[in-house]
Amino acid sequence: MKRRVKAALLGATGAVGQRYLTMLAAHPYIELEVLMGGESAGKKYARAVQWLQPQPIPERFQDLVIQKPTVESAKDCDLIFSALPSEAAKQIEPEFAKSGFQVISEASAHRMLENVPLLIPEVNPDHLELLEAQKETGWRGGLVTTPNCTVTGLAMVLKPLVDNFEATKVVVTTMQAISGAGYPGVASLLITENVIPYIKDEEEKVKNEAKKILGRLDGKRIIERELSMAASCNRVPVIDGHTESVYVEFKDRVSVNEAKRALASFMGEPQRLKLPTAPDKPIIVREEVDRPQPRLDRMAGSVPGMSVVVGRIREGIDDRSLQLTLLSHNTVRGAAGTAILSAELMVELGYLG
Amino acid sequence: MKRRVKAALLGATGAVGQRYLTMLAAHPYIELEVLMGGESAGKKYARAVQWLQPQPIPERFQDLVIQKPTVESAKDCDLIFSALPSEAAKQIEPEFAKSGFQVISEASAHRMLENVPLLIPEVNPDHLELLEAQKETGWRGGLVTTPNCTVTGLAMVLKPLVDNFEATKVVVTTMQAISGAGYPGVASLLITENVIPYIKDEEEKVKNEAKKILGRLDGKRIIERELSMAASCNRVPVIDGHTESVYVEFKDRVSVNEAKRALASFMGEPQRLKLPTAPDKPIIVREEVDRPQPRLDRMAGSVPGMSVVVGRIREGIDDRSLQLTLLSHNTVRGAAGTAILSAELMVELGYLG
Amino acid sequence: MKRRVKAALLGATGAVGQRYLTMLAAHPYIELEVLMGGESAGKKYARAVQWLQPQPIPERFQDLVIQKPTVESAKDCDLIFSALPSEAAKQIEPEFAKSGFQVISEASAHRMLENVPLLIPEVNPDHLELLEAQKETGWRGGLVTTPNCTVTGLAMVLKPLVDNFEATKVVVTTMQAISGAGYPGVASLLITENVIPYIKDEEEKVKNEAKKILGRLDGKRIIERELSMAASCNRVPVIDGHTESVYVEFKDRVSVNEAKRALASFMGEPQRLKLPTAPDKPIIVREEVDRPQPRLDRMAGSVPGMSVVVGRIREGIDDRSLQLTLLSHNTVRGAAGTAILSAELMVELGYLG
Amino acid sequence: MKRRVKAALLGATGAVGQRYLTMLAAHPYIELEVLMGGESAGKKYARAVQWLQPQPIPERFQDLVIQKPTVESAKDCDLIFSALPSEAAKQIEPEFAKSGFQVISEASAHRMLENVPLLIPEVNPDHLELLEAQKETGWRGGLVTTPNCTVTGLAMVLKPLVDNFEATKVVVTTMQAISGAGYPGVASLLITENVIPYIKDEEEKVKNEAKKILGRLDGKRIIERELSMAASCNRVPVIDGHTESVYVEFKDRVSVNEAKRALASFMGEPQRLKLPTAPDKPIIVREEVDRPQPRLDRMAGSVPGMSVVVGRIREGIDDRSLQLTLLSHNTVRGAAGTAILSAELMVELGYLG
Repeated sequence: MKRRVKAALLGATGAVGQRYLTMLAAHPYIELEVLMGGESAGKKYARAVQWLQPQPIPERFQDLVIQKPTVESAKDCDLIFSALPSEAAKQIEPEFAKSGFQVISEASAHRMLENVPLLIPEVNPDHLELLEAQKETGWRGGLVTTPNCTVTGLAMVLKPLVDNFEATKVVVTTMQAISGAGYPGVASLLITENVIPYIKDEEEKVKNEAKKILGRLDGKRIIERELSMAASCNRVPVIDGHTESVYVEFKDRVSVNEAKRALASFMGEPQRLKLPTAPDKPIIVREEVDRPQPRLDRMAGSVPGMSVVVGRIREGIDDRSLQLTLLSHNTVRGAAGTAILSAELMVELGYLG
Repeated sequence: MKRRVKAALLGATGAVGQRYLTMLAAHPYIELEVLMGGESAGKKYARAVQWLQPQPIPERFQDLVIQKPTVESAKDCDLIFSALPSEAAKQIEPEFAKSGFQVISEASAHRMLENVPLLIPEVNPDHLELLEAQKETGWRGGLVTTPNCTVTGLAMVLKPLVDNFEATKVVVTTMQAISGAGYPGVASLLITENVIPYIKDEEEKVKNEAKKILGRLDGKRIIERELSMAASCNRVPVIDGHTESVYVEFKDRVSVNEAKRALASFMGEPQRLKLPTAPDKPIIVREEVDRPQPRLDRMAGSVPGMSVVVGRIREGIDDRSLQLTLLSHNTVRGAAGTAILSAELMVELGYLG
Repeated sequence: MKRRVKAALLGATGAVGQRYLTMLAAHPYIELEVLMGGESAGKKYARAVQWLQPQPIPERFQDLVIQKPTVESAKDCDLIFSALPSEAAKQIEPEFAKSGFQVISEASAHRMLENVPLLIPEVNPDHLELLEAQKETGWRGGLVTTPNCTVTGLAMVLKPLVDNFEATKVVVTTMQAISGAGYPGVASLLITENVIPYIKDEEEKVKNEAKKILGRLDGKRIIERELSMAASCNRVPVIDGHTESVYVEFKDRVSVNEAKRALASFMGEPQRLKLPTAPDKPIIVREEVDRPQPRLDRMAGSVPGMSVVVGRIREGIDDRSLQLTLLSHNTVRGAAGTAILSAELMVELGYLG
Repeated sequence: MKRRVKAALLGATGAVGQRYLTMLAAHPYIELEVLMGGESAGKKYARAVQWLQPQPIPERFQDLVIQKPTVESAKDCDLIFSALPSEAAKQIEPEFAKSGFQVISEASAHRMLENVPLLIPEVNPDHLELLEAQKETGWRGGLVTTPNCTVTGLAMVLKPLVDNFEATKVVVTTMQAISGAGYPGVASLLITENVIPYIKDEEEKVKNEAKKILGRLDGKRIIERELSMAASCNRVPVIDGHTESVYVEFKDRVSVNEAKRALASFMGEPQRLKLPTAPDKPIIVREEVDRPQPRLDRMAGSVPGMSVVVGRIREGIDDRSLQLTLLSHNTVRGAAGTAILSAELMVELGYLG
């Protein structure tokens, strides 16, 4: 039996913050005890939040008073989850890391720093070793980041493809859900019956973060994966679930069936360690011609929202290229879920708890 | 002053049929005189149609009685527009061509036949010379087809790119409007708050038709353009307007500015001949980071819906590749509009009237 | 411990049929053993259905072969659930009732027959006594109907209001989900970014059925409740959940607080008998100014989708009238759920099993 | 020929402000010369605005520099249109009226003041006489308000009904477009695939304003119409066009046909005076069972968006009540259009120009 890990959450009232509450309400050993917020500090959670989930606010959080985002507020905790916007994260997260907390952050602020792991537990668990390098900075704790919601599903799907077949080029076009922009986020007057073919900074994040996630740990730094990438990111009128149309070129021939097998059989440390938030299958391969679809498939799998669903795997231009469509739940696998899974992995590997 | 051309329309009650009525109601010289339909034959148009346009049914068509789809029904006409589904088109269109009519069809049935032009008036007007080859089959009339709604905008944008810079590879992902599936078409239970990553046969059409449209006339046949293409076609909850995210590789370097200039300055025969349905600019280049958007841009241009709007033109993976987003109105430029423009070109070039 | 009841389902592949499978997959004593369908007969369920639910098809039904809709197909069953369209129901259901089955039908075909109960288990369980009257027709089994999806929530809310305060007049305007029209149902071209202010026959059903459900059993027939009613039914772009804005006049004064108490404390036989599909609270009263909302509240309650959620309870024109907004899940409480709850009640009362 | 009226616009960049620009770009005698805004002051219009219309920004306004909202900015104008939010309007509008401008405001701030007309030119043009009463306050100019977007269509439809048949009670349920909340307004995360059954203060406005608009001028004040009213206001995922389901009771019998005739033949001063923005028919009566629909009918009529479309006129509970559905474009007839029409009426009646 695990010892309990006490956690605090920065940015508790936002769209992603709400997912943390839902996913941690019944966690076997992570106890979310402190909710922190900026303007909402001092209010009871239920009064401060614009709750957007169909499930009610878990009862134990309803009357919890939101605390100021300070080290003092979290003093009885081991672990800080951060769902802060990037600007705030840049200021606040290092203070916690310096003071001895392990911080797991979804913000983009520190993702590309040389000594900060950009972690997907199934893909690059060894990158956690960068936490050693962080100690040289004088931090008593550490900082782990999780990737952008769009790149998470993509990197998970690319992992078995680059490992097994040496992918050389990726062209990805995304159709992203509105919840990816948080709340209030995208105005209904903009997105109703429409497509917005642009999401600020998203394409750069997809390209840069993918290369780091798929990169190789070399002592105290990551050698980025060499991969030619082009990305085009679009917003569509879907609530949750990012759909991505992917074209991949390989150095050598790859058959569709080999690719399906590699994807369907992909397993990572979380599966081997049977972490509580690990889905049985990180990647679910579907054979129907018209799947995945966000409304039907975003909550697929043994841990709802934690599996990436892949379909339409087919030959691309020739037998050295493939096409596929993937779907990943942007606020579960693409945010809170991967952060919680990261915490579980860190507990298991001795970095936490 | 042009002499009047009398036209009949096959498939008058469908979603595309309705566009013909709207666009031809005030045409300077094409007179739509006969509406034909299958099950609706014998009824007055206004009673037979599930009218889907915000504008009312043009008054002159409201009480017009729909005729059976036979040569006899159209005997006083010169020109047949066909908005039939492919199966029906396969049967019916050749009968009209055989009997001496010029048929302009949007159906896919005959598009890839060797002696049938697949026409976008701005792109391949010379392909009309195939009409000569058709005479050898014993037809007294002729058959011209217009392309699939998704490939039309793409081929128009590729035309100046292949001509000026020798494009070698194209990867396109589409986000297509529901009107592309006609009426009743896509069930609301399927597409509401969703993306459907599949449209039957669409990807093959995009790839095959693009190569024919961009091909070179060689006597009595078309030599297809060599171009490596991958396509991924998706349905999104948008009423009108297909958005396409395009990645193109070139043999040599292409700067973003050169590409913009080539696209923005593109002109075709319809512009030179000032055809009534020709937009001033076949391609409108926009500089904002978040355009084109279907709801805002689908009716852009001097002839609403006839211009392709292109934005986000940017470097791709390196200086030998580009990315861009294009938008084309699928039932105007992608269907009725291109067919009407084709008729106007045929009149001007002496094939009709 | 209940003895097992074997059930067959007519209309298994439709939108409502799918709800039955989901709700009965793990039922404690109703065993759904036979799926029947018309055109789909002979096929395995998973191949015949256009599955529309986010949850996968329950495993035990995936390979079940759909049977023809005949008495013979169901010969080992006690109970027939019918999710047939009305025309088919008119023909087929009486045959089953005649042959000794208890039929529970959602079709409108027989709802208004004098000897047929129109049942909401919380509202009019005594109407089941009409099953006695049915025996006089020579049927060896019986036929129970459940109401139209729109009237179900309304009748549940009116029940405590008419019982406690003598309501005299009701004006209701509905905003109904697209799933109420089944699959393929409403074309996306019609309902996207739109309201359709008409649903065929719906307003008459709401008015007539409400009066029967709220009526009084008088020996072998129902004396309809006297109630002045006006209804206006609209379709809105919502997937599941009918929202209804209700104005009620009373003979005497009613305070908002009295009304809230009457609604919140409403309990029926299913709650007293603790039936498996009975929600703890048939009516959930919410105090927020902006609830209920279909996307957030349709699955509320201890048995998801079985509670009616009521909010915005306020004075109407004066202290003899009230206004409120109610929400009811149209394919759960408004269809499969009420039918299953009816079966459970019939088992408990000795009509079945 | 009218003399030119120079106008300034307060709140030029908002959703309603944009409608003014579109509608006034080619006005025969009102010249919109000054655009005013708060935070946007000093910027060129095209750079300051999040333009939401499918038509481009009228060219003459694109580079116009937005001015501060002061009397000085508008010194060469006669007329001030105000599309300010209510709080700002409360402060700013009286300053303009005091300084000699005629102000036409859509804000709710001053609508219910005793000496301020709440004007719909077709309904209560005589209320303009209150401008005389305003002079007693020492204002050198005047202030005219236009009603809330929801009550405008309703009051227009009630006008012939109360005048011809003495309506006594009205129960209205609305399904309102998102543009009614301005930009950014309603978050897409709230309204996508949803209904929100509440709009702050809206129901009170509908009830109070209707009684004033339909009231009788008595010297220097309005005697409100006696009318029992209940309102229930809902937001639905529609871009433009408020749909309203209306139930009306009358003192005496009213036949459906009489009501239709009264509505279809309704004419006001704007029609008699042939004002430029007056639609031929203020009310369009449709006979189809399923109209009006916002997407199809919001731009109906000879001046797009200025007619109210009414359908489904039918008997209510008995022959002393009626039901109908009405549709009114909320940012045209419900905002900018009625204000512009008011200005035209004021010019014609000598209050302006």
